[in-house]
Amino acid sequence: MPASPLPDPTLSRLAVDAVRVLSMDAVQKANSGHPGAPMGLAPVGYLLWTRHLRHNPANPEWSNRDRFVLSAGHASMLIYSLLHLTGYDLPLEEIRQFRQWGSRTPGHPEYGHTAGVETTTGPLGQGVANSVGMALAERWLAHRFNRPGHRMVDHHTWALCSDGDLMEGISHEAAEFAGHQRLGKLIWVFDDNQVTIDGGTDLSCSTDHEQRFRSYGWDVLRVDDGTDLAALDTALAGARAETERPSLVVVRTTIGYGSPGKAGSSSSHGAPLGVEEVGATKRNLGYPSRDPFHVEAEALAHWRETAAWGAGLEEEWRGRWEAYRAAHPVAAEELRAALAGELPAGWDADIPDLSAPPKPLATRVYSGQVLQGLGRRIANLLGGSADLAGSNKTTLPWEDNLLAGTPGARTIHFGVREHAMGGILNGMALHGGVRPYGGTFLIFSDYMRPSIRLAALMHLPVTYVFTHDSIGVGEDGPTHQPIEQLMSLRAIPGVLDLRPGDGPETAEAWRAALTYAGGPSFLALTRQAVAVIDRDEAAPASGLHRGGYVLLEADGGDPELILIASGSEVEVAVQARAVLQAEGVPTRVVSLPSWFLFARQPQGYRDEVLPPEVTARVSVEAGTTAGWTRWTGDHGASVGIDHFGASAPGAVLFEKFGITAEAVVAKARALARVPQPLPG
Amino acid sequence: MPASPLPDPTLSRLAVDAVRVLSMDAVQKANSGHPGAPMGLAPVGYLLWTRHLRHNPANPEWSNRDRFVLSAGHASMLIYSLLHLTGYDLPLEEIRQFRQWGSRTPGHPEYGHTAGVETTTGPLGQGVANSVGMALAERWLAHRFNRPGHRMVDHHTWALCSDGDLMEGISHEAAEFAGHQRLGKLIWVFDDNQVTIDGGTDLSCSTDHEQRFRSYGWDVLRVDDGTDLAALDTALAGARAETERPSLVVVRTTIGYGSPGKAGSSSSHGAPLGVEEVGATKRNLGYPSRDPFHVEAEALAHWRETAAWGAGLEEEWRGRWEAYRAAHPVAAEELRAALAGELPAGWDADIPDLSAPPKPLATRVYSGQVLQGLGRRIANLLGGSADLAGSNKTTLPWEDNLLAGTPGARTIHFGVREHAMGGILNGMALHGGVRPYGGTFLIFSDYMRPSIRLAALMHLPVTYVFTHDSIGVGEDGPTHQPIEQLMSLRAIPGVLDLRPGDGPETAEAWRAALTYAGGPSFLALTRQAVAVIDRDEAAPASGLHRGGYVLLEADGGDPELILIASGSEVEVAVQARAVLQAEGVPTRVVSLPSWFLFARQPQGYRDEVLPPEVTARVSVEAGTTAGWTRWTGDHGASVGIDHFGASAPGAVLFEKFGITAEAVVAKARALARVPQPLPG
Repeated sequence: MPASPLPDPTLSRLAVDAVRVLSMDAVQKANSGHPGAPMGLAPVGYLLWTRHLRHNPANPEWSNRDRFVLSAGHASMLIYSLLHLTGYDLPLEEIRQFRQWGSRTPGHPEYGHTAGVETTTGPLGQGVANSVGMALAERWLAHRFNRPGHRMVDHHTWALCSDGDLMEGISHEAAEFAGHQRLGKLIWVFDDNQVTIDGGTDLSCSTDHEQRFRSYGWDVLRVDDGTDLAALDTALAGARAETERPSLVVVRTTIGYGSPGKAGSSSSHGAPLGVEEVGATKRNLGYPSRDPFHVEAEALAHWRETAAWGAGLEEEWRGRWEAYRAAHPVAAEELRAALAGELPAGWDADIPDLSAPPKPLATRVYSGQVLQGLGRRIANLLGGSADLAGSNKTTLPWEDNLLAGTPGARTIHFGVREHAMGGILNGMALHGGVRPYGGTFLIFSDYMRPSIRLAALMHLPVTYVFTHDSIGVGEDGPTHQPIEQLMSLRAIPGVLDLRPGDGPETAEAWRAALTYAGGPSFLALTRQAVAVIDRDEAAPASGLHRGGYVLLEADGGDPELILIASGSEVEVAVQARAVLQAEGVPTRVVSLPSWFLFARQPQGYRDEVLPPEVTARVSVEAGTTAGWTRWTGDHGASVGIDHFGASAPGAVLFEKFGITAEAVVAKARALARVPQPLPG
Repeated sequence: MPASPLPDPTLSRLAVDAVRVLSMDAVQKANSGHPGAPMGLAPVGYLLWTRHLRHNPANPEWSNRDRFVLSAGHASMLIYSLLHLTGYDLPLEEIRQFRQWGSRTPGHPEYGHTAGVETTTGPLGQGVANSVGMALAERWLAHRFNRPGHRMVDHHTWALCSDGDLMEGISHEAAEFAGHQRLGKLIWVFDDNQVTIDGGTDLSCSTDHEQRFRSYGWDVLRVDDGTDLAALDTALAGARAETERPSLVVVRTTIGYGSPGKAGSSSSHGAPLGVEEVGATKRNLGYPSRDPFHVEAEALAHWRETAAWGAGLEEEWRGRWEAYRAAHPVAAEELRAALAGELPAGWDADIPDLSAPPKPLATRVYSGQVLQGLGRRIANLLGGSADLAGSNKTTLPWEDNLLAGTPGARTIHFGVREHAMGGILNGMALHGGVRPYGGTFLIFSDYMRPSIRLAALMHLPVTYVFTHDSIGVGEDGPTHQPIEQLMSLRAIPGVLDLRPGDGPETAEAWRAALTYAGGPSFLALTRQAVAVIDRDEAAPASGLHRGGYVLLEADGGDPELILIASGSEVEVAVQARAVLQAEGVPTRVVSLPSWFLFARQPQGYRDEVLPPEVTARVSVEAGTTAGWTRWTGDHGASVGIDHFGASAPGAVLFEKFGITAEAVVAKARALARVPQPLPG
């Protein structure tokens, strides 16, 4: 179809205008939304979705489809129009319900909510970063699974982006990474309409975008008139033909195209055109009907040819898949399982026993050992670090660096680009076939927070390895010491928090992360060595899977005091317990590595671990105390840090800031219900 | 001095090597730190600080000093060496205490902690963004206050940055903004050592940096050999001479220069060289002594000439200041007060009375009205929005846009660059003379969180205007609806949270923000209209300054129930109270616009507002309930949202997600101590 001549201009004009009409009518009916961008992009959308994007509207799950990312998510009516017109399961009734409760046409495209939407966009810049992850996953899978004569993974990834996407810093990080990786099957189409919400881009930007992307090693194509179908078609084909570098197609468009009063103006960006202006626009376009949501039958029939074309594409691929499966049954089964998101049998069999290390180690070190065990079994566990690989212990030592010349390798160097790493990991997970992970210092989770939030919103199985998780960072000082990060991450709905306290808990944390299907997980891990917990005396670390568990029971009767701790502070609690028990206070230690998992337990279990009648409770965690009353209650107390850190050796800081057994004991003694030691 | 010939090569070599020796010795003694970058940058630091940076080591507060930002904060031993050697108040004893508790030489440079450090750096990319804010403030003040023949504000801003700084997305945002603004007195020196922590930059980057910055409209200069003093001197002078565009000076350096075993390798980046390698390096450099921290007397004397030069620079400026003050006493006084951070007398006199608006309005609208009142009185209140000016109501309508051609105007268009906005606001505050503010949607505070944290760490008086603060956003959907943002911002130490519930509280919130000297403030403001609170019946909004206050007292006896609310949910609490009072439950409503301020009140006041004996408490806030037990206690309940939002009109979402008076009443009834209504 792409090689075929362009259709009759009258027909294509009707087809293009259908996108404009659906977009402005839907926004008008909702009295909310962004009509301008879809109207300007209608020709691009039309050509791309009917002639270049290799997709099958009848099966949005076809694994070898081209991926399409609408990074400018506010232009959602563009993708809803395209989905509807090309024959996806999005009837006109849904378009009429644009932005309404329960509809499949929310204000911004949502992955998992609308068939054919590949990623949730809206926060600018995220989509372009996602597209890089998709293209990276595609290339990796292709190199791993394709065989001579069998190209089972072989598709392009397209992203449509706006001025705003390209202003956001994450676009720099993602584009620079993509250029370095030479992702030749990645194409960004830039909607160069020179208008943002506040007005002309001359208010805030004078960048030479083409030069900028060339500096990253991208191929750049330009279309000076975004309504010139022939020129657009040539440029899109040219971008597909470029296989050595990612491509940027700059298309000069007119926002709100067709609107006599608002075209080219920011007034068409984020608000309905108004009933009169909608009518005037249809008149101006020479559209054959004033009826809302009207699409001419011949235009719709023309659009729907895409469905037949796409079905043929998948059918042809399915034929080749059978040949591949016959010729390479092992690879085919492995690819199928990878795409299905299945873990291989025995996936955790090589996790080492970490209960008796030769000496106390940091939990980041344990994590590295666990990861290597997992990496040996899970061939598509794929990730790296934002330039802190040695510190994060995220490298599989037997694997090469994943670079343009070694595209099937497994160690990704994201560079000092935490935000893009987050967006790329999301894209990898969205593509499917790989299990992505990425590492940085916990403090720099702040740099990637918008991407973490989207992983949670999309329920993506991404794993973050966040090391250096407290003032234990030491000499690097307050800029590098997390205080509020743990609690802030716990506040994001659906994020699995994991802060293991020793080797066995670290192993269980990885197990929990890889089996959690509801969203992303993070491991918060120490820089410094932590004490070895005697697991013969203490409860098994499998308790981690319930979020919190009784690690050490009170001696000498029912507990009168409960100490609650996570991560490196578990050993502080254990030390404090020894002091208190020696003073005759039956003291329980609860390890609470995951608030998320603990909160999901039945109330009965939580009451077993934290009996309501035991109100003397002290938490200890080397971070903010804000939020801890949830577990300590009105009569409890918290040992933590509610101010910024400082630069000094980590052990000094724990002393100076009072994250010590002595401080826990003192707080415990101050609680009314705890018996006081006898004088002398 | 810059025009003078370069000193004798032997002397300058000794001077340069002193930086290398101090750096590697300090890192070695601390057994922690980053020796490589300071060793490679020693020649740049030497020339810059002795010949180009116009500063006075005896007075780091001189307002017209050139600003110097070490964006690559891990190279802290470079700036400590330069401070010590040029004669700032940083004795050698402090260098010996590098990275130790209580020293003035923390792991990364900290503003306010070490005289001469202009900003806290370490998190990469922040410093370069700060430098843009400094240069913007300088130009603005110059245009406002300089007079013919009197250039009282006239200095350069320098930033030294690394590969990591330039990979971070914020560098893109900041550089693009600076290029558009044509900040001719801004100079970034790029330490092109082609090494990052993980190894060579070829692992992650192949960008043509020079082309990249030219695409932004910068002037680019290059020095191929970072030890070639003559070439460096020429380039630095050239950058100063360029006045129409910001300048990037790319300097090819060798990380760990001088180390026979580690130069040019990532092994010198972030760890001590080792005692033997330090010795070998001194030998290799031909350094005259092996003693740790040794600086030759003649080299020190040479460095200290800078102090005399700098004292002369300030003295000359002070003479001109007297002439300026005599000729323009009003402007001089205004400039003095601005630089001192003083608010003018009557600064809040034009805040309108918002207690009886003609119709209910959104708090963002009230905020816009307050801001205009403030802007009329506070001439140096300067800010804007990250491309959401119309939504954030951040514009002073009588002011022009601050652009290259109108550098004294007051409306800043930061573009879709929230992160750079945060870093630029910090730089403006650090420069002094202006009171910066910036707006975006609350959800996008996530994009700028690292900069907010640094504002808090540095105690900078920056004000953030965060509108669209809940599911009240409506149709834009879950990507745009804050859930965890309020609580996450409250978790950052020292950040003043302000979520006013009506017009009068919005006015008080701005007063609180502008008088808080401990750090940044944010206003969380509604998109949607909020009910007008009858302030004749309710307590005055001045209660906001105590964080929380009794808005409506219980009728008919001591309160049996307390409803606690913030922002747009105050009206929900007020409605619920009416229902409960009608049922005979004496119900108090507490407005809690600021957790930070409330937590700072004496316990006695807090107990007045939330009497310990009234344990039946219900909070209502359209965000996460995590953390609310702090105020509701063990026996209380919370109405909130612990999941992501959805796309629909805002009012529908409040109903669907149960942020309603009915829900509050139901929760209240379920609390044990609240009397139940009689049946029927």
